[in-house]
Amino acid sequence: MTHSNYHFSDAERRGLYRAIYERRDVRSQFLPDAIPPEVLARLLNAAHHAPSVGFMQPWDFIVIESRSVRETVLALFEQENQKAAEQFEGERHERYCSLKLQGIMESPLNLCITCDRSRGGPHVLGRNSIIETDLFSTCLAVQNLWLAARAEGIGVGWVSILDQEQLRTALNLPEHVYPLAYLCLGYVSEFLGQPELQAKGWRSRLPLNELVHSDSWGQPLGDSPLEAALSEPQERL
Amino acid sequence: MTHSNYHFSDAERRGLYRAIYERRDVRSQFLPDAIPPEVLARLLNAAHHAPSVGFMQPWDFIVIESRSVRETVLALFEQENQKAAEQFEGERHERYCSLKLQGIMESPLNLCITCDRSRGGPHVLGRNSIIETDLFSTCLAVQNLWLAARAEGIGVGWVSILDQEQLRTALNLPEHVYPLAYLCLGYVSEFLGQPELQAKGWRSRLPLNELVHSDSWGQPLGDSPLEAALSEPQERL
Repeated sequence: MTHSNYHFSDAERRGLYRAIYERRDVRSQFLPDAIPPEVLARLLNAAHHAPSVGFMQPWDFIVIESRSVRETVLALFEQENQKAAEQFEGERHERYCSLKLQGIMESPLNLCITCDRSRGGPHVLGRNSIIETDLFSTCLAVQNLWLAARAEGIGVGWVSILDQEQLRTALNLPEHVYPLAYLCLGYVSEFLGQPELQAKGWRSRLPLNELVHSDSWGQPLGDSPLEAALSEPQERL
Repeated sequence: MTHSNYHFSDAERRGLYRAIYERRDVRSQFLPDAIPPEVLARLLNAAHHAPSVGFMQPWDFIVIESRSVRETVLALFEQENQKAAEQFEGERHERYCSLKLQGIMESPLNLCITCDRSRGGPHVLGRNSIIETDLFSTCLAVQNLWLAARAEGIGVGWVSILDQEQLRTALNLPEHVYPLAYLCLGYVSEFLGQPELQAKGWRSRLPLNELVHSDSWGQPLGDSPLEAALSEPQERL
């Protein structure tokens, strides 16, 4: 086959799948060790090589070491998190309050990945029908960075409980720049065996075969080889 | 260091970075070979192991082999693409029209990754401040699949020139389900050395060091080790 030039060795393929399966949203296991600049440069370069609509590359990276900026962001988190906690009642409320949902001060580095919605001018190739494709592209950059971090032994936690307008003010972002992801980064003592929300009984993993449809919504795969493959215990490597 | 348990071998780490750097948005190099069900199951499982806000897992996967469904989607693309082409003038218009922007019929498989905005009920942990975090999570699943596909020798092309309402109708999606990504998948004759839009002179890669800020927007890194690391030719592996 002509595509054999582009073959990955077993170990290379395993590395990609390991990063995908062993990546975690880290809040509690951060070590104080600094991330060396050449390692951080690799992570940022990985993000920068994400696909983007019309090759727009709408992202910027705000590398935050300042304690005072992080304290400001932590205060914004706490305010939003208090509001969020009130949405849950009884046992669910107790459980919510017991969860650690950010590692802003414990991680040695915070990183805000933004989306410049004006980059490339008013007409970006491929962005005419769905204007949000610039935000989607920026998400792909986040995932590249998250996976590269895992391969480097670095944990990443995404803090989503923040008001974007307040965060924009805290980081001096211009009006056309959207703070898409606020991340905490650092080496970790361990990567947990499963997602924390799963381990703590907040929510379970959905069975994949129930999420796959054939040709249009709601049409089951039926008695197909794909259905059989999806139902097998996943051989990951 | 305690995190040494979680070490990636050089080959594993190289596999992750190769997938990131050698991934392409494929439109023209598809081979007709079918994707075996166990390989497709690995790709879908990779997507399913993306991070999601509050472990919401808002995605579904519509696996499209039907020629008639694909012909319908192609017609929707052509209609939108004609409108898109009109946004460019002169030489830019000619160049736009010369670009191939989809491989809907040539690829053996189309895949729509959707976002069920109602999954997990009205209060999803971490989704109170930014309601779009469910869409962002679904993007992370797209990137997992895209990278796993590269490691398997499979090309992926994201068709973003589609009206989401028309696509929803074509795939019978309920009102609360958003068709986030329409993808074309197949083995390829080659992965191009650089992104097609870059090779064809549509747009250049931005210098990464100009996209990195220190502590807040617009503050340069200055004469720092990170600035030096970012300016070096990227040693990728």
